Amino acid sequence: MIMKQRPLIFVTNDDGVNARGFDHALELARRYGDVVAVAPESGQSGMSHAISMSRPLYLRQVRKEEGLEVYACDGTPVDSVKMAFDYLLRDTPPDLAISGINHGSNSSVCVIYSGTMGAAIEASFYGIPSIGLSLVAHDPGADFGAAMHYGSQIVEVALRLRRSRGGVCLNVNFPDLPFDQIRGIMPCRQSNAFFREHFEPRRNPMGREYFWLTGDMINLEAEATDTDEWALANGYVSVVPMQIDLTNHAQLRILRKALE
Amino acid sequence: MIMKQRPLIFVTNDDGVNARGFDHALELARRYGDVVAVAPESGQSGMSHAISMSRPLYLRQVRKEEGLEVYACDGTPVDSVKMAFDYLLRDTPPDLAISGINHGSNSSVCVIYSGTMGAAIEASFYGIPSIGLSLVAHDPGADFGAAMHYGSQIVEVALRLRRSRGGVCLNVNFPDLPFDQIRGIMPCRQSNAFFREHFEPRRNPMGREYFWLTGDMINLEAEATDTDEWALANGYVSVVPMQIDLTNHAQLRILRKALE
Repeated sequence: MIMKQRPLIFVTNDDGVNARGFDHALELARRYGDVVAVAPESGQSGMSHAISMSRPLYLRQVRKEEGLEVYACDGTPVDSVKMAFDYLLRDTPPDLAISGINHGSNSSVCVIYSGTMGAAIEASFYGIPSIGLSLVAHDPGADFGAAMHYGSQIVEVALRLRRSRGGVCLNVNFPDLPFDQIRGIMPCRQSNAFFREHFEPRRNPMGREYFWLTGDMINLEAEATDTDEWALANGYVSVVPMQIDLTNHAQLRILRKALE
Repeated sequence: MIMKQRPLIFVTNDDGVNARGFDHALELARRYGDVVAVAPESGQSGMSHAISMSRPLYLRQVRKEEGLEVYACDGTPVDSVKMAFDYLLRDTPPDLAISGINHGSNSSVCVIYSGTMGAAIEASFYGIPSIGLSLVAHDPGADFGAAMHYGSQIVEVALRLRRSRGGVCLNVNFPDLPFDQIRGIMPCRQSNAFFREHFEPRRNPMGREYFWLTGDMINLEAEATDTDEWALANGYVSVVPMQIDLTNHAQLRILRKALE
């Protein structure tokens, strides 16, 4: 039974319970309250909003100390959020959710492939402010200093805006720059882009052909100055507020006419 | 080498290459042209927009006859789309993509968990019209008659509108009704809803606790009459045109003020 004395912060990620970025997210969250965390057992990058429908889930406690409980779930990031909110924390809803800190960018179209953002979006369905944090660096020794500094500012903004209509779910990306080279936080929109893959066939030791997914992002609006891609390329922390209505409202009007 | 004589239709799904609904999608597609299909080897329900980043992919041909080639990919639905468009069909882009016919609903918030719609959305990134088709029935012997009839109408509308600004990507759900009880096609918007799970602990034969994901959808706008949920509950085929800008533009204005 989790008893609530201070604000309760939920933490998750998609790189798994042993990721360095996860430790940074725990540290950030502990500045604001008690922390309950559920993260995947293993790396779940690119898992988007996937859920485990055909197999059961296991949950185990990996850490427990004053003001902190950490669990590992053997499912996806979204499974981890669901196990937290609908099981562990069913009677003690958290006040804020943090997902990350992801190793690698989740800007632009990456948001829809991202397990980090899948988890942040899922957490927002429970009516609390949620934040996905990503550092645009895959280097295992990456510098999280700026992410920790600006991460705090963003947590405070999210808590301040939490009663906004439509809720608060933020996709935050930190450029891979030392703290003193970052120009600030820029609220922006998701850049319109897509990926193209290069599948180069290889042969496994048994002679069978296999393929690796390796893509390049193609930004369709490289000139626009109000997008997350622009912000990151120009030394800003990008913050895109999220919604999940996928309806194309302009197209809906066209479709209604076409089907009249 | 795939040579293009007639229109080329790409087909995929998330229930796997052996699903009944997939055969129906192939049959539907063959009415409009030659077909190349890549579907997951196994069921991938709930895989959303997931991609395989940490393991390689295998592809095998499972069927080849006049005007039809079917492949199985051992990855996710989105992996299957990428392998098709960026490898098999790199030099012969298809004219239309069909994902489905899914066994079960993908209306409302289900769209973000859906592998069927993940694949349809991914296909739309390649600049062609795409359609995700779902039958609101899990019964293995479900009646696809109405889906086949209205599916044809929807394919024709998608081809007619394919030059629309922003492209055409349609989330189509067929109610589980016999053909003569369906009232027609209704273009609509995604209903605002979310899921709550009921995790009931069970014990495996080794004594370890495990959990199944079993949720109920909570529709936040059950009264609205312009949503996909309303359409399906009232005997219509629902058609929601899709877009993938997750930016909450109203919230962005608030955020800019808060960070000024």
